[in-house]
Amino acid sequence: MSAQILDGRATAKAITEELQAEVADLTAKVGRAPVLATVLIGDDPASHTYVKMKINRCRQVGIEPRKIELDHSTTTEEAVAAVRRLSEDAEVDGILVQHPAPPQVDEAAVFEAIDPAKDVDGVTSGSLASMAFNEGGFRSATPGGIMRLFERYGIELEGKHAVVVGRSRILGIPMGLLLLGQNATVTYCHSRTTDLADHVGRADIVVAAAGRPELIKGEWLKAGAVVADAGYADNTGDVEFGSAADRARWITPVPGGVGPMTIACLLEQTVQSFKQRTRLA
Amino acid sequence: MSAQILDGRATAKAITEELQAEVADLTAKVGRAPVLATVLIGDDPASHTYVKMKINRCRQVGIEPRKIELDHSTTTEEAVAAVRRLSEDAEVDGILVQHPAPPQVDEAAVFEAIDPAKDVDGVTSGSLASMAFNEGGFRSATPGGIMRLFERYGIELEGKHAVVVGRSRILGIPMGLLLLGQNATVTYCHSRTTDLADHVGRADIVVAAAGRPELIKGEWLKAGAVVADAGYADNTGDVEFGSAADRARWITPVPGGVGPMTIACLLEQTVQSFKQRTRLA
Repeated sequence: MSAQILDGRATAKAITEELQAEVADLTAKVGRAPVLATVLIGDDPASHTYVKMKINRCRQVGIEPRKIELDHSTTTEEAVAAVRRLSEDAEVDGILVQHPAPPQVDEAAVFEAIDPAKDVDGVTSGSLASMAFNEGGFRSATPGGIMRLFERYGIELEGKHAVVVGRSRILGIPMGLLLLGQNATVTYCHSRTTDLADHVGRADIVVAAAGRPELIKGEWLKAGAVVADAGYADNTGDVEFGSAADRARWITPVPGGVGPMTIACLLEQTVQSFKQRTRLA
Repeated sequence: MSAQILDGRATAKAITEELQAEVADLTAKVGRAPVLATVLIGDDPASHTYVKMKINRCRQVGIEPRKIELDHSTTTEEAVAAVRRLSEDAEVDGILVQHPAPPQVDEAAVFEAIDPAKDVDGVTSGSLASMAFNEGGFRSATPGGIMRLFERYGIELEGKHAVVVGRSRILGIPMGLLLLGQNATVTYCHSRTTDLADHVGRADIVVAAAGRPELIKGEWLKAGAVVADAGYADNTGDVEFGSAADRARWITPVPGGVGPMTIACLLEQTVQSFKQRTRLA
């Protein structure tokens, strides 16, 4: 292994500690803590675990969680109404709707019920447009976390060729747009891409967001590439770690890379929303 | 020259004739014609010309134009209010806000005042999200016109490598997203891209949307590439036509390629909105 580790766990910990101090200060000034509402629909065990992790991390930095649980038979209308109430609630600063919702729920409609000013998980059309047109605003949490990781490690993006493998709503698509906003040349690859190895082999930066364990082989990489792996299944990412670490210059481990940064981005954006909403930004 | 011409003028004419017949039929059924409102802010002569062309073409197919002109000192608030009135007017089926607005006007805010159901020029965040997530809905008119041109000529997109040169709000960004939605592998290049020639040289499909005359040299192209040129300045596109036509398999002329298709897409989407709003779709 010759690559250096993009240590998401350590970076997220540092961000969390910075936030902790900032939130204590803000809470004293404003007279209340920032509030993040989490909306969980149905019984998916992984989703329950993710929400629990997010809530724990909120408490750790002094953000007050407000937990909304809707049962698995919830309709789109009911979920939209619940989110709309949170959007209108002056004491809620951020809203997170945990993905995925049960199949009968139109997830996009539920996302759109989030007030853009509270969209700290970056899932609305308005946030997508902000990312596409480089207008600031909230970022989708996983791509936003990856960008923060790059920033903390001083990874240069301008003029680099970035290949994003995957085109999902909350990961691949916004990831490419954020990289484009930092002046990278961006290629989107996906399940219908022919010559995936060839595309990956030309990249200075590879973001793996396909959700297919070890899809990307280390031998495909250009020597010295930067690799961020957003895949996660049973402690395995979308990239073959061992062989990739031999060729890359920087690589995220799985776990301990992108995952912790996702939550860090969510918390940062919740605090940002709190500051904007209470005019302390 | 060995390339065949992607004849936008002829294709737009065919679409216009089809629409003419359809609109006559729909107007008889509904008891009124489809209405497209155009909003023009300020004195830019090119914008006046474009709006006039669009209005003429509307009349030609039986769409009733409603022309709103706001003077060059219009504020964002005034422009937003004008667009909101059109959004709420039950007899308006489509709204076009001519780009560019004068500098004091926040164009994005004016765009967002368009009811997504009337966004026949495809400029709102909601339309961007529809394009990004392949959900149907209205397309930005120029990229939408290029997609229709590809479709009419049977240009295969699935699994092909498309390079989009440019990343503007209403052209480059949506263009790439639409190609991605048709399962192309998509690379966005732009002014900060290093090795533009190299990227272009790998493309099966090149969409030039940089607004820089003859930026793209014919010798850069892969033999047999498909070239759509959305550039336009003094009858010159973003691609060096002569040398490109020697290498490409298909190419759009400038003028007579992408330009007429932009208006055709706008008209088609206005009729589509009319059908949806009057429940004849």
